[in-house]
Parts: sequence; C-alpha cells; structure tokens
Amino acid sequence: MKIAILGTGMVGRVHAKKLTELGHDVMIGTNDVKRTLEKSKSDVWGNPPFSEWHKMNSKIKINTFSEAASHGEIVINALKGVACLDVLKKLKHNLNGKILIDISNPLDFSKGMPPTLFICNNDSLGEQIQYALPNVKVVKTFNTVNAMLQTNPKKLYEAEHHIFLSGNDKDAKERVTEIIKKWYGWKHIIDLGDITTSRSTEMFTSLWLSLSEALKTPSFNIKIIYKTRKN
Amino acid sequence: MKIAILGTGMVGRVHAKKLTELGHDVMIGTNDVKRTLEKSKSDVWGNPPFSEWHKMNSKIKINTFSEAASHGEIVINALKGVACLDVLKKLKHNLNGKILIDISNPLDFSKGMPPTLFICNNDSLGEQIQYALPNVKVVKTFNTVNAMLQTNPKKLYEAEHHIFLSGNDKDAKERVTEIIKKWYGWKHIIDLGDITTSRSTEMFTSLWLSLSEALKTPSFNIKIIYKTRKN
Repeated sequence: MKIAILGTGMVGRVHAKKLTELGHDVMIGTNDVKRTLEKSKSDVWGNPPFSEWHKMNSKIKINTFSEAASHGEIVINALKGVACLDVLKKLKHNLNGKILIDISNPLDFSKGMPPTLFICNNDSLGEQIQYALPNVKVVKTFNTVNAMLQTNPKKLYEAEHHIFLSGNDKDAKERVTEIIKKWYGWKHIIDLGDITTSRSTEMFTSLWLSLSEALKTPSFNIKIIYKTRKN
Repeated sequence: MKIAILGTGMVGRVHAKKLTELGHDVMIGTNDVKRTLEKSKSDVWGNPPFSEWHKMNSKIKINTFSEAASHGEIVINALKGVACLDVLKKLKHNLNGKILIDISNPLDFSKGMPPTLFICNNDSLGEQIQYALPNVKVVKTFNTVNAMLQTNPKKLYEAEHHIFLSGNDKDAKERVTEIIKKWYGWKHIIDLGDITTSRSTEMFTSLWLSLSEALKTPSFNIKIIYKTRKN
C-alpha cells in the first residue's frame, strides 16, 4: 500500500521503517527536504539527524508534505502537536477523502517539564484537525503509547493491553482497526466514540508522563480490566 | 480507628459502610445534619436519600463537618469536587496535622454530559486543597475508580490492577499505602510523586468517562503493564 507519513521525528521514523519492512511503499513528508537532509545535529531526545537515519533506511522516500500527502492512500500524522494544524490545513486538497491516522498530542514544552497541553478539557487537537479538514477521515489512535510500542505491541511481556480509537467515520475506524492489527499485531482495540473522545486520550498524556517518571521507563501501556465477580 | 468521612453521597457511604464493617469508629460529616436527614428524594444518580440509607447503617455517626473532622484520626474527602474547597478551608483547624485522603475530582456538570474539569492541565484540585491547608497531609487516591471498586478491588475478576497516590508527605503516603491494603485489599499501588501529579489522575477522568461509555459499565480499572521482552 502507498502510505504517507508526515513528520521526520522518532514517531514518523519508527512507523516508516516498520511499514517498509512489511513491503509498503512509504513516503515521508517534510517541510523542506533539502533542509531536513542537511541537519547534522541530534534532536533534544538524542535521536540522530534524519540524514543519518535515512542512510540506513534509504528505500524510504522523502518528499515535501504535499507530495507525500498525495502519495499516501493512507496518511499518518506524526508531526509535533504544536506544528501539525498549520501543516495539515495546507494539505486539505491532498488529503480529502483519505484516512488520516492522527498520533499527535497537544504537548506544550514551552513552560518546562513536564509539558502541559495547549488544548484540552473542552476541545482537542483531534477535533481541531477534523474541524479544519471536514472531508478527511480523521482517526485518532496510538497517542497513548510511545513510538516503539505503537508499532510493536508485543514488546510488552504481557500481550493483553489496549489501544484506543476516536473518529467520526465508522468505516474508517473499522479500516484502521483492521490495518493496525495486520501491520503491527494489535489485538485489543477499543473504539471510544466520535472525534470528541480524542480529549480523553490526549488528556491521558498527563498520567502517561507521571507513570513514565514513576516507572522510569516509557515502555508501558494500560490494560483495561472490566470483568467483574459476582460478590 | 476513628475515621471521618466528609460527604453523604455514594462515595462517602460506601467507604463509611465498609470501614464500619471492619470495626472502625466512623463519623460522616455534612453541612447541616437536620437538613441531610430530612431529605426525602433520591439523588440524580438514583441513590436513596441519606436517611433511608442511614436506617440500615445506623451505627455510623452523622455530625457537622467540623465535628467529623475533629473526630477523625484520618479524614476522607468524599465531597463533590465543586463543593470541597470551600468546605475544607473552614476545617483547617480541625484537620491540621492529619492525613486527608482526597478522592475528589474537579467535575463540572454545569455544561451537560460528559462533564468537563473546572481545574486541569497546569493545576489540580489536589494541589488547591494542599495549598489551602498547608499543614494537612493531603494524599490523593481512589479518584481513578468508582466507589464500589475503591473499597472492593477484588470485585474485578482479574486481581492485578492499579491505584495511584499523589502527595507531598512521604510518610503519609506510606501510611495510606498500608491502610488501603489492609482496609480494602489493594495490592498494586503506584506512588506517582508529589501533589502536582494529582493533575494526572484527575485528568484521567476524561478517559474514564469515555471508557465507561464504550464498555457500558463503571466497574473497570486499568492495569499498568511494563515488563518488556528482549526483542
């Protein structure tokens, strides 16, 4: 399948690599290809510059946001929360009618650590994206686990843990359910409801951050337990 | 032990009943005892009026907020989020030096369902309570599960699921850890850190509400899975 990934950071790279290994035709989109390839410094998280990563993953295409968005039958939003709305608005015509898998969280790092959210409570980034692109089928998912787990849920020793979906288009959510099972091996997927439920998974970021501090690892997820005893 | 429970709603009743069964000397605090006992209507959730419940649980004392707060060696805040800060501020002298187990969530039902939070993101109700009562040892816990599970975690078929603690006083958190293990049988308790981590569990309310809709039950909890495979 032709897949576009918007964003050259860790999340985008992990998905691009895995999907390429699975035989998909992946194009990563960036604002300025030349500048992206010229960067020579690691990012604040210690990830190597894109060009260095790309040398080891040279089958993966890199192009402008609009070329990538046109290429993808399915498009993955792996951009930073603060950047993605501006970028996506400009890609309206390239994205119309397509499924946009939205992984973004509205993290605001400008006031120090831990980050706060720049939208929450009575709105969400998922909703703003859907509102800005009414003809795109936005499906929010993956944003409750780190990039490595998103593409490899079996990394956790106990296989039963959950991932969530939010979106207005039922068929698109069914399609995304199928493909994330097939691509990455997800087994336990809960459809939370329409795109307004993006608030729930985006606000979960706060507990995720506290837990990653308390557990001293970003490699964790939650399992929802709801079978009750009769007592 | 002498325990005070502030609030006559479902959460307060469930804790009062269980703790009384365990042999504790429980006093429930309310604003106006006479008015509380005179109420003859069920609440919006269908819970019977307090007096009706109290007939079946007549060993449990009911008194004013200040009498109850003075009675308790440990005090449980089971008041509605919107009400509790005003009540607690007036009880400063009755509460000083004590552990306050804070179960409240800052739920705002005034704009319809699902409720939003009236504090979140860069502040929390737990923090505001601690800030208003600097000599009280506020330990936020239980606010991520419903009342029945708070006092009976074994109600869930799979016993391994988690509850969280937030608070500035390490000894108080250790004490609360001990007593919620002993009282209710909690086994898996994660200390998230200082009282600012109340934001995380209070903001989890949003995912809790979406999940209770999706699963059609309030009887569920999360298990944190973090053991990873080497692959």
